[in-house]
Amino acid sequence: MQVDVALLVQKYGGSSVATSERIRAVAERIHDSIQHGDRVAVVVSAMGDTTDELITAARRLSSRPRLREMDFLLSTGELVSAALLSMALHELGDDAVALSGPQAGIRTNGHYGRARITEIAPTRIRGELRGGCVPVMAGFQGLGPDGDIVTLARGTSDTSAVALGVALGVDRCEIYTDVEGVFTADPRIVPSARKLDVVIYDEMLEMAKLGARVMHPRAVEIAEHFGLPVVVRSSFSDAPGTQIVAESAVPIETMQRVRAIAHDLDVARVTVRGVSDRPGLAHALFQPLADRQINIDVILQNASDGGVTDVSFTVAETDLDTTLELIRPVAAEVGARDVAAATDLGKISIVGVGIQSTPGIAARMFGALSSAGINIQSITTSEIRLTCLVAAPDVARAAQRLHDEFDLESPS
Amino acid sequence: MQVDVALLVQKYGGSSVATSERIRAVAERIHDSIQHGDRVAVVVSAMGDTTDELITAARRLSSRPRLREMDFLLSTGELVSAALLSMALHELGDDAVALSGPQAGIRTNGHYGRARITEIAPTRIRGELRGGCVPVMAGFQGLGPDGDIVTLARGTSDTSAVALGVALGVDRCEIYTDVEGVFTADPRIVPSARKLDVVIYDEMLEMAKLGARVMHPRAVEIAEHFGLPVVVRSSFSDAPGTQIVAESAVPIETMQRVRAIAHDLDVARVTVRGVSDRPGLAHALFQPLADRQINIDVILQNASDGGVTDVSFTVAETDLDTTLELIRPVAAEVGARDVAAATDLGKISIVGVGIQSTPGIAARMFGALSSAGINIQSITTSEIRLTCLVAAPDVARAAQRLHDEFDLESPS
Repeated sequence: MQVDVALLVQKYGGSSVATSERIRAVAERIHDSIQHGDRVAVVVSAMGDTTDELITAARRLSSRPRLREMDFLLSTGELVSAALLSMALHELGDDAVALSGPQAGIRTNGHYGRARITEIAPTRIRGELRGGCVPVMAGFQGLGPDGDIVTLARGTSDTSAVALGVALGVDRCEIYTDVEGVFTADPRIVPSARKLDVVIYDEMLEMAKLGARVMHPRAVEIAEHFGLPVVVRSSFSDAPGTQIVAESAVPIETMQRVRAIAHDLDVARVTVRGVSDRPGLAHALFQPLADRQINIDVILQNASDGGVTDVSFTVAETDLDTTLELIRPVAAEVGARDVAAATDLGKISIVGVGIQSTPGIAARMFGALSSAGINIQSITTSEIRLTCLVAAPDVARAAQRLHDEFDLESPS
Repeated sequence: MQVDVALLVQKYGGSSVATSERIRAVAERIHDSIQHGDRVAVVVSAMGDTTDELITAARRLSSRPRLREMDFLLSTGELVSAALLSMALHELGDDAVALSGPQAGIRTNGHYGRARITEIAPTRIRGELRGGCVPVMAGFQGLGPDGDIVTLARGTSDTSAVALGVALGVDRCEIYTDVEGVFTADPRIVPSARKLDVVIYDEMLEMAKLGARVMHPRAVEIAEHFGLPVVVRSSFSDAPGTQIVAESAVPIETMQRVRAIAHDLDVARVTVRGVSDRPGLAHALFQPLADRQINIDVILQNASDGGVTDVSFTVAETDLDTTLELIRPVAAEVGARDVAAATDLGKISIVGVGIQSTPGIAARMFGALSSAGINIQSITTSEIRLTCLVAAPDVARAAQRLHDEFDLESPS
């Protein structure tokens, strides 16, 4: 554990503040940091299932609530937890002040429900910290250009925390959650998964994107860009958690190895069938999706048969309805035969800095899956990962098999 | 019912928006007004018991939560109902926009928990109305000078509504609640109580102050000052409710009569005993209470006995703890023997414009109470009311007796 005095951002997720008792425990943790001499700015999520409950309340009144009012509604969840956590800190004798995203100086592009932070003006927070007060900021929200409160993409109190950490120039950002850190695989499907003491930003980014939801990918990107040290820890234990650091901060021998297995079942495949292959086709199909900020992942195009082809791509299953709504008129316009969707797929990935350029790793992955009788539907790669699209029911078995193959149970 | 097209403020209390179904019913009522051609700005309270639930959540974490964080917390209740009601209006095809108090231009003196509105800058609301949109404003809140959200005194979404009505120059302000209007007495203790079609501002003000909680006294004061017509109606029925109007708007024969019986059980008496009677004593005792905006009602001072006297006064029972906290050090300072408190009292009042100057009315009141064996502990009067302090258990019987005595069951 570090013994030097630091300036910190601590972010507490929904499960960490789900009840009065947990809020009190979080306050005690912050109190301990302050007693230790640290100065702490806090970012907090909505309590437990609050956000889901608010969504349910909205759906009872409207099948498709407007995004502006949805943001107005959902932003209250974090306000409540910020107020309650401040009160719990007061009770311990600490000075604390609850701040909404707008009050904390979080400015965004105003894109309702998926806003991006454009600027942080941390004057208020700096002032509070200077005065010995703990600013407790509502995460997941900021001010739009119209003066409206807007929410960042769901689950992105992480992003608020990291961006605030950068703006304040903190020594590190601590992300408190209900797991002990980043694991070599999801322990729910690979029981022998091991907690990693250190991961590299790029690895964390790939794992976050691939469903290891301990930290939001956008938050990882920002931390990496500004070289902000991040620690992911459990708010339920004193275990030291996982440090997320730059590549240069780790010994060379931890690189060019498979470090973790990631999986993702939130995958849907959309196939536009019987479309004339011509220049600009992909642009015509995908621009409307890009405009709505829907991330397209694997794109597959069959060999053109007499100028007619099928184009497949994957999106998050949660984006499927919107995707189909957007793609169907475009498909009709470009003369496609029809559009089909499938949700029985999953992604399984191996992650590690430099593995793409390391001979033999890809072959071992394919061999292991093949020997387990798992059919690979497509493969995508990046510098630090290899991802196979497989049938959803094969995902857990594939994860276990690859965890064994690359011996991730043993400390590296 | 009026058939002319109007500019309205409609205010819906907590019971009117307690569930999804009720929110939908309120949306339909607003929708009907719009279909009729009216332009409507809406002020909404928190759903049902939300405010109490938030207070309970706060108390679980802190025995005495700071007022700033309490306001931050409580203000979320009205934000939620404003968002949900807007969504319900969208579902009916109406344009609507949820606004926080600060967004709606409500500026206050920043006195946490008891803020007063200092200014309304209704630019945004005017703009929305002009654009054919229904602004749905969160009541009970505004912006303080420090940029903090502050709440007005509890129950004062009425005040937001009336102040907004004045700022917009509306034709009338409709206060929707769970009763059909203003009654000649509280129907729970006087079953024969009758709904009044019209009451005069001053009468309403006295009744509001004396516990007839259909409308907050501060709201009545503002309406009266600006001559804003107000209607109190039920959101659960189509009954026309009670109009609250200026004295000049009613026929002379409705005046100089007892119009209603009001009662109040939220009464505590504080007695400062054995204090030297000297100039400035009352100022020394009461200034600290005035500074905390605690309303002192009946003040009694016994005849001075050798320069030593007892000073008694009544406050709302809800203010008793704070009052004792403030008065005890002052009492010690001025050399008083001790401070005693009693909460077994109630107030019973007859209300009617001009009754104080009408011969015989006071005598009838005292006679009726006396013949019912009810002991009067003290009497206070204003232009339009006579109030007796009696034992709490006698209050209901006194109300019934006076209702009969002045024949309030029969239409005036």
